[in-house]
Amino acid sequence: MDQLYRIDCLQYANWSEAIFRQFREGGLDAVHVTVTYHENFRETVLIMEQWNRWFERFPELIFQGRTGDDVRAARDMGKTAIFFGFQNPSAIEDDIGLVEILHMLGARFMQLTYNNQSLLATGCYEAEDPGVTRMGRQVIKEMNRVGLVVDMSHSAERSTLEAIEISDRPIAITHANPASWHPALRNKSDDVLRALGQSGGMLGFSTYPHHLQGKSDCTLESFCEMIARTADLMGPERIGIGTDLCTDQPDSVVEWMRVGRWTKEIDYGEGSKSNAGFPPMPSWFRDSRDFDQIERGLRAVGMNEAEVAGVMGNNWLRFFDAQFQPA
Amino acid sequence: MDQLYRIDCLQYANWSEAIFRQFREGGLDAVHVTVTYHENFRETVLIMEQWNRWFERFPELIFQGRTGDDVRAARDMGKTAIFFGFQNPSAIEDDIGLVEILHMLGARFMQLTYNNQSLLATGCYEAEDPGVTRMGRQVIKEMNRVGLVVDMSHSAERSTLEAIEISDRPIAITHANPASWHPALRNKSDDVLRALGQSGGMLGFSTYPHHLQGKSDCTLESFCEMIARTADLMGPERIGIGTDLCTDQPDSVVEWMRVGRWTKEIDYGEGSKSNAGFPPMPSWFRDSRDFDQIERGLRAVGMNEAEVAGVMGNNWLRFFDAQFQPA
Repeated sequence: MDQLYRIDCLQYANWSEAIFRQFREGGLDAVHVTVTYHENFRETVLIMEQWNRWFERFPELIFQGRTGDDVRAARDMGKTAIFFGFQNPSAIEDDIGLVEILHMLGARFMQLTYNNQSLLATGCYEAEDPGVTRMGRQVIKEMNRVGLVVDMSHSAERSTLEAIEISDRPIAITHANPASWHPALRNKSDDVLRALGQSGGMLGFSTYPHHLQGKSDCTLESFCEMIARTADLMGPERIGIGTDLCTDQPDSVVEWMRVGRWTKEIDYGEGSKSNAGFPPMPSWFRDSRDFDQIERGLRAVGMNEAEVAGVMGNNWLRFFDAQFQPA
Repeated sequence: MDQLYRIDCLQYANWSEAIFRQFREGGLDAVHVTVTYHENFRETVLIMEQWNRWFERFPELIFQGRTGDDVRAARDMGKTAIFFGFQNPSAIEDDIGLVEILHMLGARFMQLTYNNQSLLATGCYEAEDPGVTRMGRQVIKEMNRVGLVVDMSHSAERSTLEAIEISDRPIAITHANPASWHPALRNKSDDVLRALGQSGGMLGFSTYPHHLQGKSDCTLESFCEMIARTADLMGPERIGIGTDLCTDQPDSVVEWMRVGRWTKEIDYGEGSKSNAGFPPMPSWFRDSRDFDQIERGLRAVGMNEAEVAGVMGNNWLRFFDAQFQPA
């Protein structure tokens, strides 16, 4: 790959023309957008319908991506390709046939869990992690068949290691950081990251303050040094960016993410009662417009041009090329 | 087009490996299959899931078609391309956004009505026909945009003429015959057929006995003479085959077609109390295996080779090429 592609492998913004213009300002050729947190199938389709309206309304800015070549087409046309994903398998309900249906509609990533136990596996906030379930094994097999990538960003340790093992195709952790750098429940152990790298999987580095050392005060240098160290651990071709940006979302949305419809009580997730809302972004990364900062930061910590190109998007593009098609 | 393609533009069989093998025996490169009679969106998706299972199980016989080129690919591979359609707009419920979602899932034809009044237009069994509704106009526009063909096979006269007029792209009547040949409520007036032909639309000739002169006793000669006369009326490039075959369906299915969930009473539709089930097929057309008979019959009534090729499939293929893509 001669070109340097730029891909953000996770955002869940309060989508608007202004945000699509930020994609273009930041030079993003592709963004993996979260369609579903806790929505069921019909609700997921309603959100896809809303995306169709945005594609119709802003054809000069965005279009739906389905393959790696759509990222190249986006670069050629000066647009951003939008790839759909789910943070929770609620979209398939209890029906394995919906895996292929949702892939036909453009879904390319699906988390097996979002924090809690799901029908498929265990989330990172559960006290016990019994691993991938009976249905989980079947769904991984079906996801492998159709080309829907297993994403374990919000899953617990054992379930994640088992998913890496069970899946015939490499999986992804689209948005998380190493727990050795910042020990959040959502960040991942070196064991998980090593197994992920060895299996050909991908990690996307998150800029969500709760995942950063020093949270909102995290420095660009610390973030980029962490990336360089993770390149040593996983291999420089196994890492990319997945910012977890929630640009312009009201605090009611972080509550929806955490609480869904599974509890009547408040759960503060990574926040706390005194700090329940979205945390402020670090000064060097306001939103999609600041991808240049990360690129500069990676060079400053001594990564070479090929490694920087890989992290900024070329590694994700290689992964998209290989993983989005039927087996 | 040098090749002679063979397309059946409507079947609703009791799908099985045996029937897919009949497609191959009959040399069918493509079949438009009815997915939905009265099913809502979720039920429609469940039926598509069932089709995905058949595609997975019988990859040497069938695959999902989306474009005209898939018909050519089918010919090259010795398989039959399956195109999805709905006989009732129940699949989109009251949600115009589902038009594009269902097109993304492969839908290529949708009837605006099935016998009764729908949200969009009037069916051929209603006493009054007030024409295309407010929502109907919006849905036709959206179908035009995404490349989902308006099918008026089961619609009433005024609604059909209005749909031809309102639609920016040619529409289809996938399975019906001229009422001047056999005056069934489901057959079409010369006014409708003339307007359809002049607008670039297509008529598929039905072999369903209730649409045939003499019903099950209809002769091949009478059927083919009717086709030749319709070529004179509409133009020889505006006609094809849409058999309406219901091979191996039990009589409970014809009741479902007629009654759906809209009445608690029995409605015999084109049948009668003493003849409520599926009528026997004419001797010269048992099922998909007998397409050769129609081809021979068309030659016997004096149609030339180009006209025969057009009726057997090339006209539908030209229509598929032009009408299945976004505007």
